[in-house]
Amino acid sequence: MSSIESWAYLSRAIEGPSVHLQALLRAGRDADEIAHGVRTRASWLGGLTRQTEARYATNRAVADLEEAQKHGYTLLTPDSAGWPTAALQTSFGALESISTDAECPPHALWVRGSRDLPGLFERSVGVVGTRAATAYGHQATANLVDGLGGHRYTVISGGAMGIDTVAHDAALAASTPTVAIAACGAGVSYPRRNERLFERIAQQGGSLVTEYPPGVTPDRHRFLTRNRLIAAFSTGTLIVEAAFRSGALNTLKWANAFGRQTMSVPGPITSPESLGTNLAIVNRQATMVLSADHIHELLSKVGHVDAQLALEFEHAPTPLQQLSHNELRVYDSLPPVGEGGREAERVAEVAGMSVGLTVHLLLDLQKRNLVQREGRQWKRTVERAGEKAEAQL
Amino acid sequence: MSSIESWAYLSRAIEGPSVHLQALLRAGRDADEIAHGVRTRASWLGGLTRQTEARYATNRAVADLEEAQKHGYTLLTPDSAGWPTAALQTSFGALESISTDAECPPHALWVRGSRDLPGLFERSVGVVGTRAATAYGHQATANLVDGLGGHRYTVISGGAMGIDTVAHDAALAASTPTVAIAACGAGVSYPRRNERLFERIAQQGGSLVTEYPPGVTPDRHRFLTRNRLIAAFSTGTLIVEAAFRSGALNTLKWANAFGRQTMSVPGPITSPESLGTNLAIVNRQATMVLSADHIHELLSKVGHVDAQLALEFEHAPTPLQQLSHNELRVYDSLPPVGEGGREAERVAEVAGMSVGLTVHLLLDLQKRNLVQREGRQWKRTVERAGEKAEAQL
Repeated sequence: MSSIESWAYLSRAIEGPSVHLQALLRAGRDADEIAHGVRTRASWLGGLTRQTEARYATNRAVADLEEAQKHGYTLLTPDSAGWPTAALQTSFGALESISTDAECPPHALWVRGSRDLPGLFERSVGVVGTRAATAYGHQATANLVDGLGGHRYTVISGGAMGIDTVAHDAALAASTPTVAIAACGAGVSYPRRNERLFERIAQQGGSLVTEYPPGVTPDRHRFLTRNRLIAAFSTGTLIVEAAFRSGALNTLKWANAFGRQTMSVPGPITSPESLGTNLAIVNRQATMVLSADHIHELLSKVGHVDAQLALEFEHAPTPLQQLSHNELRVYDSLPPVGEGGREAERVAEVAGMSVGLTVHLLLDLQKRNLVQREGRQWKRTVERAGEKAEAQL
Repeated sequence: MSSIESWAYLSRAIEGPSVHLQALLRAGRDADEIAHGVRTRASWLGGLTRQTEARYATNRAVADLEEAQKHGYTLLTPDSAGWPTAALQTSFGALESISTDAECPPHALWVRGSRDLPGLFERSVGVVGTRAATAYGHQATANLVDGLGGHRYTVISGGAMGIDTVAHDAALAASTPTVAIAACGAGVSYPRRNERLFERIAQQGGSLVTEYPPGVTPDRHRFLTRNRLIAAFSTGTLIVEAAFRSGALNTLKWANAFGRQTMSVPGPITSPESLGTNLAIVNRQATMVLSADHIHELLSKVGHVDAQLALEFEHAPTPLQQLSHNELRVYDSLPPVGEGGREAERVAEVAGMSVGLTVHLLLDLQKRNLVQREGRQWKRTVERAGEKAEAQL
């Protein structure tokens, strides 16, 4: 097993993921050997020579480990018990090529809070979206995350303002663990006003994770690199609100490349913050989801996914909604409740149906207690509120 | 050609569409012959004997025609120049069976306003939805109908409160003809507060159409029968807002059976009024649509439908959004505008890239006027507002 200092050195010397480093690891060289090779500009480094050109001489491994510890961070490596091997294999193993750095897994992860990444990621949903979240985005995120907590999913997000913050907050409120993947190193709180949120995430069974060594700033290109990790670690990725060309769509693109479930929340066509999410559905980059139960069905893939089924029970039809067309014709041809009755022959005339069929249907409606007979008069017994005047038909 | 009185008699004697009447017409009997047969209880009436049992003795044909005329209505029959033959053939011809009355075309139509139904229906969109429309439903309907007017579509709806009313209103405002299909006969204004709207529809090139003779009341079962006509007459049917089990979904079901384009507007997952429309998309009963242009593309089927294409132009990426990942790494490694510059070697170190590649990319960015060189110092020239602090990535 390589020394942790070697990994810390490589984490600093190589910016983000590296296709050259992964090639050397796959070829059987270990971190100690590679770190030594980088320092001494070994002949077998290949592309890593140029990739480390600017930083190889900086050896801050011990200082970085101390600085990280000061902020509560530990360095996890492929040698660590808490390394998310399964999630990384599932995701990066699904890529068609590994020709760019971004198509490679991280070589090390700095972690604060729970170090059981396999446990956290096993059953997880990445929830991402715009920083400029609307009231609807807030409400939808909070509802969905609350429901996902009920199904015991870890909620993974990016710790940014807007949708990310609501997702982490709602997860904490629902006592479901949540993980923030940062685009900066330990000691950099970004965004600053989420400092307290990050503390609570680490304290309440969740984790703060970053590919970057202490002090690295959250530059734009690091957000793009970070997005791939949210997608890689999540069983499925959900975008809640995203404008046109939003970075959340970049996360979705990664989730698709990783063969992970991609999901999008629909929103008003009049809202710019739902343009990206709606387009992702139209363009089949994501499956439209309506509720946490719906997401759970998609992720657990237990039999046929039926968004309607649960709702059928919630919105059980009234006896009147269950009438056949001819039954409705007869029922409609009776006066409203409290306005007397009608003889069967007259009901038939109003309904434009034969007397025989009309009587047959009246008797049937009587069995279901929807009409009653008083002498030769047939009367309604039930009326839905406002049914007659404003029937939603 | 049969007399108009015979058609008027049949319109009253037979409630709504009739599979038995259609069978006789297909067998070559004309309306005069059938009307006489119904009156005299002819042996060859088949199922029509029972279907007309309650009303055959009522002969109000002349009175009905007069009453209709009083309200500005004319009776159109398959013999009339204005009969919508093409729309009916396209829609009812696509049905898998004609075993129920509802699966039959209307035998006659009472029309007020324009009598050129083929002209009105040739290029048309049925726009339907809940009576309990939200502010979003109002806005979405108005926007879409306004845009459909620009593409010269007739807007067909049901004249009800809520989405229907907004659709008719917006069509009038956009000077595009609009057609209201009613579930009641001439002389019955339903809903009453739309009386003035119906007048304007008839006056401004549109039409009021009903299958029912004068005085027939808008009972629930007639709304269901009416819904099929909205779907049958429209090139495509669009639902804007619909609750669970909404009648608008019934119209959508008909449009699907007719092989017409079915479309649904997404909405907030937190809004009960968008539950039906969202579910229709999830369950693939309707295509999600985002704009009038999108609807136009679907209906005209000119090449590949690409909702994104128009938007690509509207939301053209900024030069910074077009940078490759490595270009972004270099750009990000320069100080913000106004905070000085950096030497190439230092940029390479910050970016974690080789000096050679860094210089190559800096020169490239310089060509695009995104960075400039002053002596050995490289500087940014452009900064997107708030880019650094709150980049949406």
